[in-house]
Amino acid sequence: MTDDIRLCRTFQTAPAAVPKDDSAKYLTSGLEADGFQAPDWLVPDLEDGTAPDMKAEGLENTIEKVPEYEFPGEIWPRVEWSYEDETYREKGRNQIDRLVSEIGDEIDGVVVPKVGRLEDVKHAAEAVAEAESEHGYADGSIGLSIIIETGRARSDLREIARFGEDSRLTALVFGPVDYAAELGGRDLGDGMPRWDGLLEALSNEASAGGLLSIGGPFDDLFKERAGLTYYNADEYADQVEHEARLGLDGSWSLYPKQTIQANTVHMPTPDELERDVSKIERFNEAKREGTGAVTLDGQMVDEATFKNFRNTVQQVRAIHDTRPEQAEEYYDGDLLERALELELSYR
Amino acid sequence: MTDDIRLCRTFQTAPAAVPKDDSAKYLTSGLEADGFQAPDWLVPDLEDGTAPDMKAEGLENTIEKVPEYEFPGEIWPRVEWSYEDETYREKGRNQIDRLVSEIGDEIDGVVVPKVGRLEDVKHAAEAVAEAESEHGYADGSIGLSIIIETGRARSDLREIARFGEDSRLTALVFGPVDYAAELGGRDLGDGMPRWDGLLEALSNEASAGGLLSIGGPFDDLFKERAGLTYYNADEYADQVEHEARLGLDGSWSLYPKQTIQANTVHMPTPDELERDVSKIERFNEAKREGTGAVTLDGQMVDEATFKNFRNTVQQVRAIHDTRPEQAEEYYDGDLLERALELELSYR
Amino acid sequence: MTDDIRLCRTFQTAPAAVPKDDSAKYLTSGLEADGFQAPDWLVPDLEDGTAPDMKAEGLENTIEKVPEYEFPGEIWPRVEWSYEDETYREKGRNQIDRLVSEIGDEIDGVVVPKVGRLEDVKHAAEAVAEAESEHGYADGSIGLSIIIETGRARSDLREIARFGEDSRLTALVFGPVDYAAELGGRDLGDGMPRWDGLLEALSNEASAGGLLSIGGPFDDLFKERAGLTYYNADEYADQVEHEARLGLDGSWSLYPKQTIQANTVHMPTPDELERDVSKIERFNEAKREGTGAVTLDGQMVDEATFKNFRNTVQQVRAIHDTRPEQAEEYYDGDLLERALELELSYR
Repeated sequence: MTDDIRLCRTFQTAPAAVPKDDSAKYLTSGLEADGFQAPDWLVPDLEDGTAPDMKAEGLENTIEKVPEYEFPGEIWPRVEWSYEDETYREKGRNQIDRLVSEIGDEIDGVVVPKVGRLEDVKHAAEAVAEAESEHGYADGSIGLSIIIETGRARSDLREIARFGEDSRLTALVFGPVDYAAELGGRDLGDGMPRWDGLLEALSNEASAGGLLSIGGPFDDLFKERAGLTYYNADEYADQVEHEARLGLDGSWSLYPKQTIQANTVHMPTPDELERDVSKIERFNEAKREGTGAVTLDGQMVDEATFKNFRNTVQQVRAIHDTRPEQAEEYYDGDLLERALELELSYR
Repeated sequence: MTDDIRLCRTFQTAPAAVPKDDSAKYLTSGLEADGFQAPDWLVPDLEDGTAPDMKAEGLENTIEKVPEYEFPGEIWPRVEWSYEDETYREKGRNQIDRLVSEIGDEIDGVVVPKVGRLEDVKHAAEAVAEAESEHGYADGSIGLSIIIETGRARSDLREIARFGEDSRLTALVFGPVDYAAELGGRDLGDGMPRWDGLLEALSNEASAGGLLSIGGPFDDLFKERAGLTYYNADEYADQVEHEARLGLDGSWSLYPKQTIQANTVHMPTPDELERDVSKIERFNEAKREGTGAVTLDGQMVDEATFKNFRNTVQQVRAIHDTRPEQAEEYYDGDLLERALELELSYR
Repeated sequence: MTDDIRLCRTFQTAPAAVPKDDSAKYLTSGLEADGFQAPDWLVPDLEDGTAPDMKAEGLENTIEKVPEYEFPGEIWPRVEWSYEDETYREKGRNQIDRLVSEIGDEIDGVVVPKVGRLEDVKHAAEAVAEAESEHGYADGSIGLSIIIETGRARSDLREIARFGEDSRLTALVFGPVDYAAELGGRDLGDGMPRWDGLLEALSNEASAGGLLSIGGPFDDLFKERAGLTYYNADEYADQVEHEARLGLDGSWSLYPKQTIQANTVHMPTPDELERDVSKIERFNEAKREGTGAVTLDGQMVDEATFKNFRNTVQQVRAIHDTRPEQAEEYYDGDLLERALELELSYR
């Protein structure tokens, strides 16, 4: 994390069109969501979430609905693409062009799935650059996020993230279903692997390249036990907490209840905030008294330790900027005020 | 996995010569094995499995015995080599030359152990190319598989696999004993590490480079408890299942019972096959009815999900091609027939 | 590990100056430590362990105290540095220059923290080269070890280790606190992640580049339970054993009791030594009898297996060279003698 936190606790995909009377039902409910159900990023999904014969309608829904709402988070439509199939890349380029042309002011970028090696990621970046320039947008104003879901993209992850340092690349998102299919991973009764090596590398390379890292979708939305079918809150929370521990910036959500959970886990707890605000307050006071080294609870506070405290406060400030109602609901008013007013420099 | 599955559920090494009356005993029993004891790849071992003073005899055994059998799987002799010792590379080159010269039509390739960095792998590939050309074989007709068992090969794994994309390189096989010795890994009472980072990378890089990935040998063949010595089936199965989950294509076998287990684990279970055949059948039917999006059991079938079903069926078809008796023993006749006749294209 | 073992079971940092009557208290107690409390490497810490207003005094303490003792291990002062802040690099260069100028004969190298990508590591190496040349030391006589604690250094780990093959680079040391802060890792109640992917890569790349690999500090020195505060021996031992299993050469110590534990874990147990000495003795005897293949307890001894036995004996010999009292206390006299006299060549 850098000083300037870009928030993406939740990367919520919503099918851009579904075979219902209101084909934009899930898209509009994402745009309208409030409280903790409101995602940081809403991803109108023109790829695997929308059926082949509804793609065109999904694109029109996106173009029509997104401008109707003042969505406080970011909007990132997912288009079609495939490193191994030019047909899909052509579709993707056309979708990007339409989106930038029609709602370039309303979207923060596009999400490109199934990228392959670095060269393919560069092709995706060029497709965005062309649409941008064609429709009169400033260079870099339309971002690019990619789904890491092929062996080749994982193989080139370091190079892709380095390319990201000076490019429109914004987030690296994990896509476990395609990934497992490519590698031939198998569920022998206790689920697919978590791909811990990949997750750790994703967190590291995103951090080294100044990018965001986001976990993959969890689609066992419901569980059935003793005759009752109920929302599978525990397993999703386990996954999101695992991602948070490893330093991923956010988690993928497929469903409003998942958004509540991912928003909450990727938010410092009130105890964490109280602890770190109070440490910084005491640190600042000791600094003012000029004793040189600052010791708190018997431990000397060095810059590394201080950075950990500061991360907590900066994350809360970024949430308060975008979703003030979440911050206000979650934290005591006094504590939140202290977090917003704190001086955050180490020296 | 690609559309064209190359089968290596089992990589069974057999010492090419042992100090017994019949020094080719283990080699011939590998060549003669049938049913589930028959490995996909048989590896006559001229390296660590054969004693230094029996190497010459092992080479003669291999040259003599292999042509005597119509082995339905692949034959891959393992020769000597070492990235850090020219003596061993020289021995390896001579063994490769003899094998290609004498039984070039009978072998699918050679296995080269203890390779170092990419350059060393290229030297091994050149040794094969020279023998091939010297004895009049078409370029690429003799394959190369390597054992990843040094820090340097692991360090260069990505580059080695990329080299493999357009070369005779066929499989990347893990060698944990040498590897642990190089790194100084220690068994402090609960065994050596599993090297999960390496296994995940092996699966990924092999997939990205279109190669096979194979796990390492498990040599605690027997266990002793309550006065009885018995085959250690549980621990080997645990290892093989772990490898299968991560998408490795096969496992190393040292022993016929291990071959039974590895062949079985790397084969879809009857339930998996029934499930995936039936999903594809229903998918195909829905496609014919032209409803556009196909939803099965409440889930829309996208291309990624479909690929997972197809992997299952293709693996069974490949097994049926090479080892029909295994497929016929393991699956119900009707189910197998359905798997063999299914239309497998998504679009 | 190579034939020539460089010992660093313990990398013990000691603040170079603390706000006590005797500001060099911890430094001198490290220099004076004996028995199992004596670390292999003593690291006078001018970076995060010493308060900003005591850095100058810490440097003087180091220059004054180190030459007063005949420390049998290695001395590696840690200086200041930061890939993202030239101020710190400038401080680091000055500290390196002073150290080499004043006690260049007494130190084995310097430890540079918070390095970034390969280029930054090269800058650190140049700073050492300049001080060396400026003060008349032979090229390469002052080593460099680095702390891997940024996303960028982790990203470039392979390239850094390859640079290390032909340079003054000696050890790669993990720094988890800064690392977690950079990645945004979080403790959600059960501690920070162990970063297993990083540890495995550290062990591998160090091995491939002929470098040492050292784990990170563990700072929960004490535990409180049922009214009693006591040294947290169990959790530190768990961490050190985990590092040893993965082939790390040593562990970071912050405290004499940690040094006892890390010295002990990174030392073969008497049982391991007895087992491996006896295997080599029997191997040597069988070789003399000229039976060709040597089989011990039913297993043929190949070169890989032999290397594992030899690692054990070489580690004990290196310990006996530097800290004879530790070897003599830990092993039975006869066993130690056998270990010291053994012929260790495979062929």
